[in-house]
Amino acid sequence: MHAHLDELHADLRAWLRIPSISADPAHAPDVARSAEWLADALRRTGFPTVEIWPTAGAPAVYAEWPSADDGVPVALVYGHHDVQPVVPVELWQHPPFEPTVVEGPHGPELHARGAIDDKGNVAFHLLGLRAHLAATGRDTPAVTVKLLIEGEEESGSPHFADLLRERRDRLACDVVVVSDTGMVAPDVPSAVVGMRGLADAEITLRGPAVDLHSGSFGGGVPNPLHAMAALLAALHDEQGRVTLPGFYDAVRPLSERERELMARVPFDEQAWLAGPAASRATAGEAGFSTLERVGARPTAEVNGMWGGYTGPGHKTIIPAQAHAKLTFRLVADQRPEDVAAQVRAWVEQHLPAGIEAEVHTPPGGVSPCASDLDSPAMSALLAAIARAFDTEPAAVLFTREGGSGPEADLVDVLGAPLLFLGAGLPTDRIHSPNERVLLPMLTRGAEAAAHLWRELAAVPHP
Amino acid sequence: MHAHLDELHADLRAWLRIPSISADPAHAPDVARSAEWLADALRRTGFPTVEIWPTAGAPAVYAEWPSADDGVPVALVYGHHDVQPVVPVELWQHPPFEPTVVEGPHGPELHARGAIDDKGNVAFHLLGLRAHLAATGRDTPAVTVKLLIEGEEESGSPHFADLLRERRDRLACDVVVVSDTGMVAPDVPSAVVGMRGLADAEITLRGPAVDLHSGSFGGGVPNPLHAMAALLAALHDEQGRVTLPGFYDAVRPLSERERELMARVPFDEQAWLAGPAASRATAGEAGFSTLERVGARPTAEVNGMWGGYTGPGHKTIIPAQAHAKLTFRLVADQRPEDVAAQVRAWVEQHLPAGIEAEVHTPPGGVSPCASDLDSPAMSALLAAIARAFDTEPAAVLFTREGGSGPEADLVDVLGAPLLFLGAGLPTDRIHSPNERVLLPMLTRGAEAAAHLWRELAAVPHP
Repeated sequence: MHAHLDELHADLRAWLRIPSISADPAHAPDVARSAEWLADALRRTGFPTVEIWPTAGAPAVYAEWPSADDGVPVALVYGHHDVQPVVPVELWQHPPFEPTVVEGPHGPELHARGAIDDKGNVAFHLLGLRAHLAATGRDTPAVTVKLLIEGEEESGSPHFADLLRERRDRLACDVVVVSDTGMVAPDVPSAVVGMRGLADAEITLRGPAVDLHSGSFGGGVPNPLHAMAALLAALHDEQGRVTLPGFYDAVRPLSERERELMARVPFDEQAWLAGPAASRATAGEAGFSTLERVGARPTAEVNGMWGGYTGPGHKTIIPAQAHAKLTFRLVADQRPEDVAAQVRAWVEQHLPAGIEAEVHTPPGGVSPCASDLDSPAMSALLAAIARAFDTEPAAVLFTREGGSGPEADLVDVLGAPLLFLGAGLPTDRIHSPNERVLLPMLTRGAEAAAHLWRELAAVPHP
Repeated sequence: MHAHLDELHADLRAWLRIPSISADPAHAPDVARSAEWLADALRRTGFPTVEIWPTAGAPAVYAEWPSADDGVPVALVYGHHDVQPVVPVELWQHPPFEPTVVEGPHGPELHARGAIDDKGNVAFHLLGLRAHLAATGRDTPAVTVKLLIEGEEESGSPHFADLLRERRDRLACDVVVVSDTGMVAPDVPSAVVGMRGLADAEITLRGPAVDLHSGSFGGGVPNPLHAMAALLAALHDEQGRVTLPGFYDAVRPLSERERELMARVPFDEQAWLAGPAASRATAGEAGFSTLERVGARPTAEVNGMWGGYTGPGHKTIIPAQAHAKLTFRLVADQRPEDVAAQVRAWVEQHLPAGIEAEVHTPPGGVSPCASDLDSPAMSALLAAIARAFDTEPAAVLFTREGGSGPEADLVDVLGAPLLFLGAGLPTDRIHSPNERVLLPMLTRGAEAAAHLWRELAAVPHP
């Protein structure tokens, strides 16, 4: 396997040079180029079937390598080849699309947008599959391996559920291996067992028809920026709870066992704060630990806010409009489609006279999801991770991921249980400047994947 | 006088083509060009002395036309040749720097940025002085007329007080005629007798060192946008009063006579709301009429607010920073230099753990000012306005202007009382898209100015 590591790193660097930012329409050609690059790399790896699947948005890449054995399970690897925007680009130590190796305390790091989220997580599977064949002396994998790598995850996967429904027959599988997550620390084997869902909303408040002179009108008419500040200030109560009407109605309370399992995860709050967060204090919902708040409790965050004059100097106006972008992280059994109505009701509750609101809630969203902790497939995953870390399955910790992907759609449409295997770390600065992947973690990921195909071959399936 | 009207309109159109936006450093050459244009126009009008005075910022224009008579007063006209920014430019019906005449219900209107604020108000003095000489058969004005037209009023006049102190001897005068205001309606003669002052502040709140993934950190660390919303929501109490500690301490209460004089001003609140405000409701401090709130009470307005992701789609981040620009309108005897400390104290009161604040309060600001209602100079102004409107001085209403200029500096440094003569209207959309001047109001302004120089010649002075 280590002979091929250099090839993995070179391949990943080439892929990372493609700025496949799905949120920005100007980068649509780059997202298409990224799909083509990946298709070519999968063909070079040996996949006999590789296809680019168009969608109403960005293309997905599909690949399939059937096992020659009869009666073995089919595993579908899910990931994405699009990346987050890179603003503020001036905070990057190296240009985000010029991958750069930096020596860090845990070994060499590769810095680039998408280094781990999610190109690194997809790339280790190419090496993992080769290692699996080499170690077992096989020409085909021990299980049938399918890959579906979409191009719109960082934009909320707006066409992914449709794609799954259209291609349901081709995608039929016994287990889904989600490769878009990570582990708790470089030397701590762990498995994600749940992910939060996502709903988003954009709010526009309108006051006067045009920007007004604050000397002539200030103190006389309502200011949309004041209304927006009051609205967003009312998003949380004094306990840090989200105030949308009905927001917590469907939240499944954490069981004592779940809280105990989460408490076993080593977590140094001060080190976490001093890491990529570089935050000076924790915040959030009262009554829950920080790990519970970021992994297992629903939240509301304002991601952007703007209005009025933002240029040099000052401009003495009452602006005509104010804007905000919000996202909500959801946990089982909240449903993203319920959040739109909750946001509208909440905005209505806080709207002063003379201000009109427009609430845009894109359809879709992401449902929260969770793995079955006691399934045979989970046992196979724990065994594979344990081998990659030279330890016992019982030493593999269970964690929850705060982020969101379209994993719930995979469960809904394909009816297969989810496993999570990823090589990321909480310190990888995903979505932030200076995103990186720890190269030794990529190796661990490839090793775990190589073991996983053999372990899964032994799992009984319908 | 009417023979020269076409010349006035052509001159004004030429001047308005120069985009002298002082707030934007990119337009500094245009502000300089605007000063040169004005200097040339003053020479053409006949001023024997015309000078461009550099400052640490944009240049001012100074002109002087001594009266040949002995023992007559010296009047100094104050105005400015810079203009407001034009964003959002897509809301202009005609390009802001291509002056366009539009027929309106009260006669022809000239649309352009600066049409009334303040190029129109300065330009009518050129015609007024010619009319004064023609009507009196004089070669020199009946009083010595000086003009000081600065280039940074829309940026808060940061270097104006220094300029006044440096040039105090040249600027010595018995009365200052401020030409940067207006009247209440096209057919209602009125005189401004007070202006609000101005103080401004820019606030930056910092949370995490970089934008963070809201899935990994949401619910765990403080979000600067939430902190900014809570801060700005706390800027006013439930009575609409500004919550800065000590903000009202120096405010002189309105006397019964002042409230009665203001109540005489015809004001149709519904028509006012339906005008340029196009606002659906009034807002502001409880216990005061709308005219009192916008003219005679101090206010706080958020003029701009921004932070996080504002591009297309969504970006699931907790942003590192949030920003806001605020201005405060002040009334006698508030002092702008006191507001900086009040803002800092207020921000400190509302800062959550983990958020750091940076408050930038530019030095300077604008003090509030007021005219002496019973002075002989005021009587001369009322007589001049009354003649321009073919009415009696007692029919001229007193108003207060909500806006701010550096008028208080003129009082402080030059020790001369203020008169206000301007041709603007509340419906002129100053600082907004589609700013205009009503051309018949420019004629009224020129007529009032022509009368004013003769009326002032009869005023006793030290």
